[in-house]
Formats: sequence, C-alpha cells, structure tokens
Amino acid sequence: MGAAVLSADEHEGQAASDSWLPSLMTETPQEGFALAVKLSQKGVATTQTDAEVRKELRPEYAADPNSLIAISHVIATHFQTVAAANDYWRE
Amino acid sequence: MGAAVLSADEHEGQAASDSWLPSLMTETPQEGFALAVKLSQKGVATTQTDAEVRKELRPEYAADPNSLIAISHVIATHFQTVAAANDYWRE
Amino acid sequence: MGAAVLSADEHEGQAASDSWLPSLMTETPQEGFALAVKLSQKGVATTQTDAEVRKELRPEYAADPNSLIAISHVIATHFQTVAAANDYWRE
Amino acid sequence: MGAAVLSADEHEGQAASDSWLPSLMTETPQEGFALAVKLSQKGVATTQTDAEVRKELRPEYAADPNSLIAISHVIATHFQTVAAANDYWRE
Amino acid sequence: MGAAVLSADEHEGQAASDSWLPSLMTETPQEGFALAVKLSQKGVATTQTDAEVRKELRPEYAADPNSLIAISHVIATHFQTVAAANDYWRE
Amino acid sequence: MGAAVLSADEHEGQAASDSWLPSLMTETPQEGFALAVKLSQKGVATTQTDAEVRKELRPEYAADPNSLIAISHVIATHFQTVAAANDYWRE
Repeated sequence: MGAAVLSADEHEGQAASDSWLPSLMTETPQEGFALAVKLSQKGVATTQTDAEVRKELRPEYAADPNSLIAISHVIATHFQTVAAANDYWRE
Repeated sequence: MGAAVLSADEHEGQAASDSWLPSLMTETPQEGFALAVKLSQKGVATTQTDAEVRKELRPEYAADPNSLIAISHVIATHFQTVAAANDYWRE
Repeated sequence: MGAAVLSADEHEGQAASDSWLPSLMTETPQEGFALAVKLSQKGVATTQTDAEVRKELRPEYAADPNSLIAISHVIATHFQTVAAANDYWRE
Repeated sequence: MGAAVLSADEHEGQAASDSWLPSLMTETPQEGFALAVKLSQKGVATTQTDAEVRKELRPEYAADPNSLIAISHVIATHFQTVAAANDYWRE
Repeated sequence: MGAAVLSADEHEGQAASDSWLPSLMTETPQEGFALAVKLSQKGVATTQTDAEVRKELRPEYAADPNSLIAISHVIATHFQTVAAANDYWRE
Repeated sequence: MGAAVLSADEHEGQAASDSWLPSLMTETPQEGFALAVKLSQKGVATTQTDAEVRKELRPEYAADPNSLIAISHVIATHFQTVAAANDYWRE
C-alpha cells in the first residue's frame, strides 16, 4: 500500500500536540523529498483528521490520474520549500 | 472535528478589526505549519464571512479527495512563505 | 457580506485610470494579507469589469468549497509576493 | 468590455515578430500589475493565436467564477515575477 | 496555427537525445517568454511523445478557455524561472 | 511510449530504500529538466506504488489535454527548484 497521501497512518495514534515537525533540515535530497510527502499528507490530515475517513477515500484518489497529478504538485511545492531550507544540499 | 479549513471557527466571534496576524515569526516549523493552515482558512473566511455557511460546506469538501488535496496545496504555498520568513528555522 | 473576491465593490465607481496600487509596502502582515485579497480581487475585476456581473456570480462561488479554496490559493500567491516585498515584516 | 484575458485584442494586428516585451521594469506596482495581466493574456494568445476564436470564448469564461479565479491566479504568478524584477518598487 | 502547446511540432523529427535546452540565458524578456512556452510544450511532449496524438488533441484544448488558462499558468511558472535565471534582464 | 509520468517504470523493481535522489546538481539545464520529470513521476509513484495500476491509468491521462497540462505544471514547479539549485547553470 503506497504512502496514502490522504491517510497519514503513522500520525493516527499520535496526539495532535506531539512534535511531528522538529526541523526542515535533512541529510539528503531524498530525505527532503520524503519530508515534502509528509508535509503534503499533514496538510490533508489537518483538515480531515479522521484517519478512517481518509483511508476510505484512498481507492477514489489512488486510481484517478488527475488526483495523483495534483498530489504530485503539492509535493513539488513543499519540496521547493525543503530544498531551499537545505540550500539545495550543495556540498 | 478537524481544522475545518472552510470554518475558521475561532475567528467566528472575532470582530473583523481584531489583530489576527501580528507576525509571521514562529518558534518552530510546526508552529509555522499551523500558521500556514490559519492563513489558508483566513483566505476562505475573508471571502465567505458567514461561519454557518462555511460549516455547512464542510461535509462536502472534507470527504472529497480533490478538495482535500487542493487545501493541502494552499497550505503548502503559505508554508513556503512562512518558512522563508523564518529563514527556515535554521539554527 | 464578505469580501466578494469577484465583486471588488470598492473599485466599482473608480475610473480605471485611478491609482489603486501605489505601493506593496504595509505596516503589518495583516495589512499585507488585506492587500493580497485586494490584488486577487483586482485580477478578477480586470478580466470581468462589469461589477453587476461579478455580483451576480457571488452566490455561485461563495457556496462552492472548491471555488473558495481556489480563491484562497490566489490570495496565498499574492501574499507570498507582498510578504517578500516587506521582508516578511522582520523587526 | 474588460481586459479579455483570452482576447489580447491589442496584439491582434501585431506581427508575431514585433517587440511586445522589451523589459520587465515598470515605474509603479500598478504598471507592474498591468504587465502581469498582459503576460497572462500573451500566454493564451501564444497558444490560441486566432483573435476571433479567443473573442468567441469570452462569454464562456467571463461569466464563470472558476475561470475568473484561475485567470487571477495566472496574473498573481506573473505579478510575483514582475515584482521581484522591480525589487518590489522599494524606494 | 498557434504554438500548439500539446504539439511541440518542431521537436517532432528531433531525436530524444538532441540538445534542446543548452541554456536558460536569453537576450531579452521576449526570448525568455518564448523559452518558457517551449519548456511548457516540452513538459507535455515528454509525457505524450506521439506528435500525432498531441496534434489530434489540439482542437479540444485550443477552444477550451480553462485549458488555455491552465497553459498560461504553466508558461507563467516557467517564465518565473527563466526571468530569475536572467536576473530579470536588468541593465 | 513516452515518459509515463504515472508509470515511473524504472522505479518498478527498485526497493523503496534505494538511493534514487543523491543530488539536485546536473551538468546542463536539459539534465535538470529530466530530473524535474523524474521528481514529478516520483511524486505519483510515492502515492500509487503499484506500477501496474499506474500503467493502466496511462491511456486515460496521456490523451487528456488537461491532465497533460497539469503534468507539465508539476514539472515546471520541480524545474524551478532544480534550476535554483544549480544557480541556473550560469557560466
């Protein structure tokens, strides 16, 4: 099962107060991309906090090209932020 | 009930004149993300000021993957602004 | 009645030639957000200059979550510009 | 008749080779906004070069809130570029 | 026939390996805008490499205001990149 | 068969843990554009990890102008990031 952008499962059991975003710094671009995916998921989970509802929506968006493209666009916007934060991981 | 992006409840009783955005500075990225959510909500509440109407719309967008993805995209755009404002919370 | 993004009423009686955007500088982030709302409205009013038509459209978009979210996204893009112009109102 | 974003009339008689974009520099933010509108129009006119077709499309988008909002978003993106080019018209 | 954003004709006979993007630098903003149009076309042609299919799609998008507006938005995003690359063609 | 943005085939057999994004640096703008295409694909493949499902979706989006335009917009956003990372490949 892919990273269900609308089912940020790992956040399910997490109390809202926990620290889920201590920093934007990552070691590598790949970790930065994973953070961008997490930020995109969180943007959905903040609006629809019911993980069950989000899971039920998965079949709908996971097989809809336009939804998948729109998700990729959100990830691209967050990745732009994370990359700038890490000065593009320039050596 | 999640952060209803279209029902910025906490603004409901607030007179329009109140100071709701004193600064873009936050202590942590997580607070910055919360501010981005608030800015996204305010963008809706500025256009549709009737909190009751916004609440009635919630069932419609909170169970629509494409609406949830679009909201996440607005949050991503504001988060990009808030992150730059805070110099990406670099130590 | 909210800030009808498609009915920039205050521009109604204003001749096109008037100076409506003397500067991007604002005292506070909140004023910056209000300017971003105004810029978003102006983007619509520049295309559909008939205030009556814009007013008639209001019921349609003001009760459509996806329209409200899309408006919030335009405001977010303009707010990003205004915030950068004001160096994020850093003290 | 508003600035028909899909009917960049003033470009109609203009040969494609003419210089329509000598510079991004403008005296004022308001002129910068007008340039952003022009760039948005040109983006459409470059794709659909037939001014008659563009004019016929006007009734369709000029009364569609979502089209008007989407146009405002394109203008916002170009305005961000023009504002940065002019260093936000800082005195 | 306009610059068919979905039919990057001039790329048709071009082997995929050719150098089509040697640089982002252009002499003038207008050439920068033309490069942004080319980059937008390439984004489509990279996904749908069959020029015949792309040509068949033209009637559909070239008379659809929302498609034309969406294309203008892609061009605006690329133009933002090209303008920054050329330091906004500041003298 | 074009770069199926929803079927990042080359990732198919790749274990999720592999390093697919060691750096954002590229020799040329054209390689930078190819990386932007790869990032856009990865944004989809991270959400819909089943390569077979992504392949089945191809006929749907590869012949839909609005899907193709939306994909080009995601590529444009990633290209903006990669170009900034490489200081626009300025000599």
